[in-house]
Amino acid sequence: MAFSVVGKGLPRIDGASKVRGGAVFGADVKLPGMLIGVFLPSPHAHARIRHIDTYRAEGLPGVKGVVTAQDAPSLRYCTPAYGPSLCDRTFMARSKVRYFGEPVAAVAAVDEETAREALSLIAVEYEEIPAAFTIPDALLPDAPLVHEELLSYQGVGREARGNIYLQRSAARGDVSRGFTESDFVFEHTFATPMVHQSYVEPHAMVAAVDDAGRATVWTTTQAPFNIRSDLATILQMPLSQIRVVPLEVGGGFGGKLFTTLEPICLLLARKARRPVRMVMSREEEFLIARPRAAVTARLKTGVKRDGTLVAREGEFYFDTGAYQGAPVSFGVRFGLGPYRIPNAKADAYGVYTNKVSAGYFRAPGAPQVTFASESQMDIIARELGIDPWEVRWKNAWEEGDESVTGERMGRIGLKKTLEEVRRRGMWRADREVGRGRGLACGQWYTGGGATSACVTIYEDGTVGLLTGAIDITGSRTGLVQILAEELGVAPERIVVPVPDTDTIPWTGETSGSRITYGGGAAVLQAARDVKGQILGLVAEKLEVSAEDLELGGGRVYVKGSREKSLSLGEVALAAQGTKVGALLGWGVVGRLSPAPVFATQVAEVQVDAETGQVEVLKLGGAQDVGFAVNPLSVAGQMEGGMAQGMGYGIMEAMIFFRGKVENPNFADGKVPTAADVPSMATAIVEEPSDGPLGVRGVGEMPIVPTAAAIANAIHDAAGVRIRELPVTPERVVAAVKEKRG
Amino acid sequence: MAFSVVGKGLPRIDGASKVRGGAVFGADVKLPGMLIGVFLPSPHAHARIRHIDTYRAEGLPGVKGVVTAQDAPSLRYCTPAYGPSLCDRTFMARSKVRYFGEPVAAVAAVDEETAREALSLIAVEYEEIPAAFTIPDALLPDAPLVHEELLSYQGVGREARGNIYLQRSAARGDVSRGFTESDFVFEHTFATPMVHQSYVEPHAMVAAVDDAGRATVWTTTQAPFNIRSDLATILQMPLSQIRVVPLEVGGGFGGKLFTTLEPICLLLARKARRPVRMVMSREEEFLIARPRAAVTARLKTGVKRDGTLVAREGEFYFDTGAYQGAPVSFGVRFGLGPYRIPNAKADAYGVYTNKVSAGYFRAPGAPQVTFASESQMDIIARELGIDPWEVRWKNAWEEGDESVTGERMGRIGLKKTLEEVRRRGMWRADREVGRGRGLACGQWYTGGGATSACVTIYEDGTVGLLTGAIDITGSRTGLVQILAEELGVAPERIVVPVPDTDTIPWTGETSGSRITYGGGAAVLQAARDVKGQILGLVAEKLEVSAEDLELGGGRVYVKGSREKSLSLGEVALAAQGTKVGALLGWGVVGRLSPAPVFATQVAEVQVDAETGQVEVLKLGGAQDVGFAVNPLSVAGQMEGGMAQGMGYGIMEAMIFFRGKVENPNFADGKVPTAADVPSMATAIVEEPSDGPLGVRGVGEMPIVPTAAAIANAIHDAAGVRIRELPVTPERVVAAVKEKRG
Repeated sequence: MAFSVVGKGLPRIDGASKVRGGAVFGADVKLPGMLIGVFLPSPHAHARIRHIDTYRAEGLPGVKGVVTAQDAPSLRYCTPAYGPSLCDRTFMARSKVRYFGEPVAAVAAVDEETAREALSLIAVEYEEIPAAFTIPDALLPDAPLVHEELLSYQGVGREARGNIYLQRSAARGDVSRGFTESDFVFEHTFATPMVHQSYVEPHAMVAAVDDAGRATVWTTTQAPFNIRSDLATILQMPLSQIRVVPLEVGGGFGGKLFTTLEPICLLLARKARRPVRMVMSREEEFLIARPRAAVTARLKTGVKRDGTLVAREGEFYFDTGAYQGAPVSFGVRFGLGPYRIPNAKADAYGVYTNKVSAGYFRAPGAPQVTFASESQMDIIARELGIDPWEVRWKNAWEEGDESVTGERMGRIGLKKTLEEVRRRGMWRADREVGRGRGLACGQWYTGGGATSACVTIYEDGTVGLLTGAIDITGSRTGLVQILAEELGVAPERIVVPVPDTDTIPWTGETSGSRITYGGGAAVLQAARDVKGQILGLVAEKLEVSAEDLELGGGRVYVKGSREKSLSLGEVALAAQGTKVGALLGWGVVGRLSPAPVFATQVAEVQVDAETGQVEVLKLGGAQDVGFAVNPLSVAGQMEGGMAQGMGYGIMEAMIFFRGKVENPNFADGKVPTAADVPSMATAIVEEPSDGPLGVRGVGEMPIVPTAAAIANAIHDAAGVRIRELPVTPERVVAAVKEKRG
Repeated sequence: MAFSVVGKGLPRIDGASKVRGGAVFGADVKLPGMLIGVFLPSPHAHARIRHIDTYRAEGLPGVKGVVTAQDAPSLRYCTPAYGPSLCDRTFMARSKVRYFGEPVAAVAAVDEETAREALSLIAVEYEEIPAAFTIPDALLPDAPLVHEELLSYQGVGREARGNIYLQRSAARGDVSRGFTESDFVFEHTFATPMVHQSYVEPHAMVAAVDDAGRATVWTTTQAPFNIRSDLATILQMPLSQIRVVPLEVGGGFGGKLFTTLEPICLLLARKARRPVRMVMSREEEFLIARPRAAVTARLKTGVKRDGTLVAREGEFYFDTGAYQGAPVSFGVRFGLGPYRIPNAKADAYGVYTNKVSAGYFRAPGAPQVTFASESQMDIIARELGIDPWEVRWKNAWEEGDESVTGERMGRIGLKKTLEEVRRRGMWRADREVGRGRGLACGQWYTGGGATSACVTIYEDGTVGLLTGAIDITGSRTGLVQILAEELGVAPERIVVPVPDTDTIPWTGETSGSRITYGGGAAVLQAARDVKGQILGLVAEKLEVSAEDLELGGGRVYVKGSREKSLSLGEVALAAQGTKVGALLGWGVVGRLSPAPVFATQVAEVQVDAETGQVEVLKLGGAQDVGFAVNPLSVAGQMEGGMAQGMGYGIMEAMIFFRGKVENPNFADGKVPTAADVPSMATAIVEEPSDGPLGVRGVGEMPIVPTAAAIANAIHDAAGVRIRELPVTPERVVAAVKEKRG
């Protein structure tokens, strides 16, 4: 089938306005009488709060409101939309603080200086108590408990124990027998650190309450409906009394999925009876936002001499920090790799520690466990003397294979991505001294949360598309392309207003690489709905059958007779005078089956064995995207993901000392800059899914295998195997030293 | 059928916030950097513009933009949504001014004082030309032409001639033969003045243009989509690049149906690159807003001795002022009265004069022609010595009767309203000296423009209703009642956010008393849509048939088993995890057949024959509303309409001298105050229409017969017949004098 708009590299429709500074972000919202809100962070990682005295702060001129957790009718909340969840989270500390930086009180004042001065006047009496800072700390039998009350995981029914709040497990076959039947058994432990999403725009929001008590919150978020729900729980308001306006997101990567300061901001606005703005400083971002969880993974793998996998067992400990939020179940889902394993077992645990609580970050859980799995696959290949590519090829999933969680593969593109990196010469045998090449596969999936779309044809033939999909990856452009294609209009004739929770067609959070997949399906449904109305009306007007009509160039034609036609604008205007009324199409798509996604990446590095310095020379990736609605955007996502994966591999980590982040800024906490990013090659594989136009999710996949590919390349170059991320010069030097003995 | 929410007198859901000052009106919008805009009114009623010099105004410090008609790519506009129309209107004068006050230039400055000073610095060179101020002036063969270019009425094809821009006609039977066959023939001329709607809130708007050139206009309007369309025409922008946000309307009565200063405000904002606010002063309201047209009506009526109508011929001249906008076709439709007339002929003419241009005002056209028709019915009754009630009863339309325009009556309630005023003792024979009683019937119809609604169930069981219906009569409350009834939820659980043209389900203008009729149908459709989703989901969950379920108290029950139930919130939450996704119902209703509406009113007055002073002692009205969704609101509309009709009858008129309004304020231009309004009685008649729940439009009808009833009562009291509105003391005294000889 020939397409005229989809499949083409259309530049982002919102690109120009973002480049010129016209797009509206959270910190751009200005309301008359607006105050500035700031919060008081806990100076302890674990302490009881004996008393909070806000009297002096309240008396400071210019201070319009001071709040503590006491001001909210409800302390705990959990977003129902995330399905089964543990209601352990508090929006502010009340009887005790569980991590350094946890908000304890907040102030709204006429300016930030006054507000910060007021913070210094708040007297909090703490009683420090022993803390559990690391997974080993937390798992000791007599470890201090981060949460004394063990809450039952709603909807799962599993009782928590000690600091373990959740266990998820899956198994198939018999791993004990599998290991017995193996020629070789490998067992290793791997570790990954907490890493912040490092989006350019920090969390920023404005809250206002109207005369009737109805609240509006403007915020940077990937999940406006979840924020509304959390606010309703905490402030005990009906959902109908809260409007959340999602603004442009200056980088999200999963870090803007969760409610952060919104309840505090709204409480301040309510107390001060004036709008309040809160914008996190970069340091606050590192203190209280929700980074990628640290994971410790133990992998035991049995193989035949020829590299065939026989058994694999994985244990994945997710360090979630002070509140649940680590993507534990994804450890089970992705931890054993995309391979045919007859005997498999995976257990993942969520562990509390006295640190900032973890959340989601691009392909949550997958980069951590894939670093472990793909490092070990590389170890196995090297030990058996088989090409790492061959080991993957031999075991890689094909149609009909089944995962440890019981998911049966349909048509998938994993082996095609392996073929592609070889065909394109990304994976080659030759190499120079001091240089190395590493390969890694990765898997992810396209989430299927509910989404909706609404399409209107205006009387001049321009088109409005309403969608609740938040654009964090350029997905709006892809949706416009799908709509333009289906209606036969130019993409620039389509406008995508940014609505709010009052007026958005209901949509789940923007996550799971699902916008083009699920949102695209909703847009197609809406487009077909309105197309049916158009064809019906024109058929009646021109006295032909609807089947004899076609759309193109913003007009409806009688097939084979280009003269007989009506413009979409004429049809829309005519509709207003008929029983049709408005040309308005509607698409609601519920939860879809997830579509699996696969990628293979190759890293080429140069290692200075003396200094430990690693230079990534090239990154190449092949990814199955099902169908590339916008190849330009797909390539951009692949490149961005690999760059971010490279940061994860060799640079990024939140460094803690007794629970406190020691590098809460971009001076001490490095991320790759443009100068660090190497030359990249991307290969798009298109093995159609069952989704609209066959698409699969794109955005998250590229970050998954990169760190492993780089670690494998470092081993190839320098002969040292680093099993803890990031692969810093210090670790390389230490390993080289140890190897040299 | 028993209802629990509809049919009850629920107070207005937005009443409290309006009373407390919380509701947001146009003048309440404040944006950072906002400027104030003002316009320069023409000091002549008819003059050529030789030159406009804005140089000095532009140089005044604080002035950020000066515009004239030259700044817009298009001068003329006509709203396509109004159907066939004459594109004669300009948003600002260019080569000539056609009425006193017409905007000639406009300024945006940092404050109003500066802006007004800048106006005084604009030099306009005019050349005055002869003008046509009145209908007789305008109809002279050598009358000055208000529009030199005679434009063809689009979609009608009739050529305009002289200052007559439109003629509409209808006929049935043979009036000449009818008059010959009549026992008596009556012929009279009646006149009514231009009258301003006198809403509390003057026109107020704010325009802003974003970085990408997209425009947002906040305004007080009954027709946001029409304003968008006019702006697109004048500024030559795609509709998709304009967002119109309709704010609360502080009284509309049809006076906020048309675009006024919005194009000027937007041009200023574009030129100044800052938001601009324009708020009309009360004087500007009288100078340039769009009042009820003045009408001169000639009626010739032939009757049998027993009062049976045999023939009636009407000529209705609508004085539209400088631009078309008078409701000419309604003259034909309503001018002959709601009576069985075998031989009938009606001609209505739209006539240009050099005055402010007319628009729509509550039941546009009907109060004018009904004053003529019902005054003459009264004359006929008195002359024949028949009770005025009997004359109406004898000739009143019943099911199957047909109007001069060919409309065949279905089930209608006209005779029931006549019965009702008698049954309730409003119409009685007894009367005191100096007092009189008058009766009048009236007709109107319920418009059927397209409308839409969208209903969402939130996860806590509260409900969102999106509708494009602007609330000018409390209609929002009625729509909530209809929705609450259908879904079995309490009305206070429903929220009705105010959306904008980006996010409103498309809806035609709020006019023609059609919101509960057409909008109610859309709400019902949307409610039934979402109800189907709810029942389907619950049936699956509880493993019962959907037919065995019922909704009530915010829950879904298995019939006969009150224990087995789910709350709407639980259902909404469950839906998110299923293929349903969002509980979201949608209703689009196209143009419906209009439903006829009738009323009978009785006025009781006391007349001081010496001073001419008329005191209205009582007003009573019976009206067929089909079904009263909210009887409290219906009674309020009836009372408000009669009060406004009383103002029309004895107080209100825009007084012109050579085209200039001489009383452009509430000191010289009187409207009834609370102290003037007499005791009122209202009787609701419910003869179901084919609309949702059988409703008929309510809001406009009550103003239609009041002036005639009062004039008839004055004749009853003082024996003088005043055939020109308003019936001022001067006119009464003059008539009494003339009668006494």
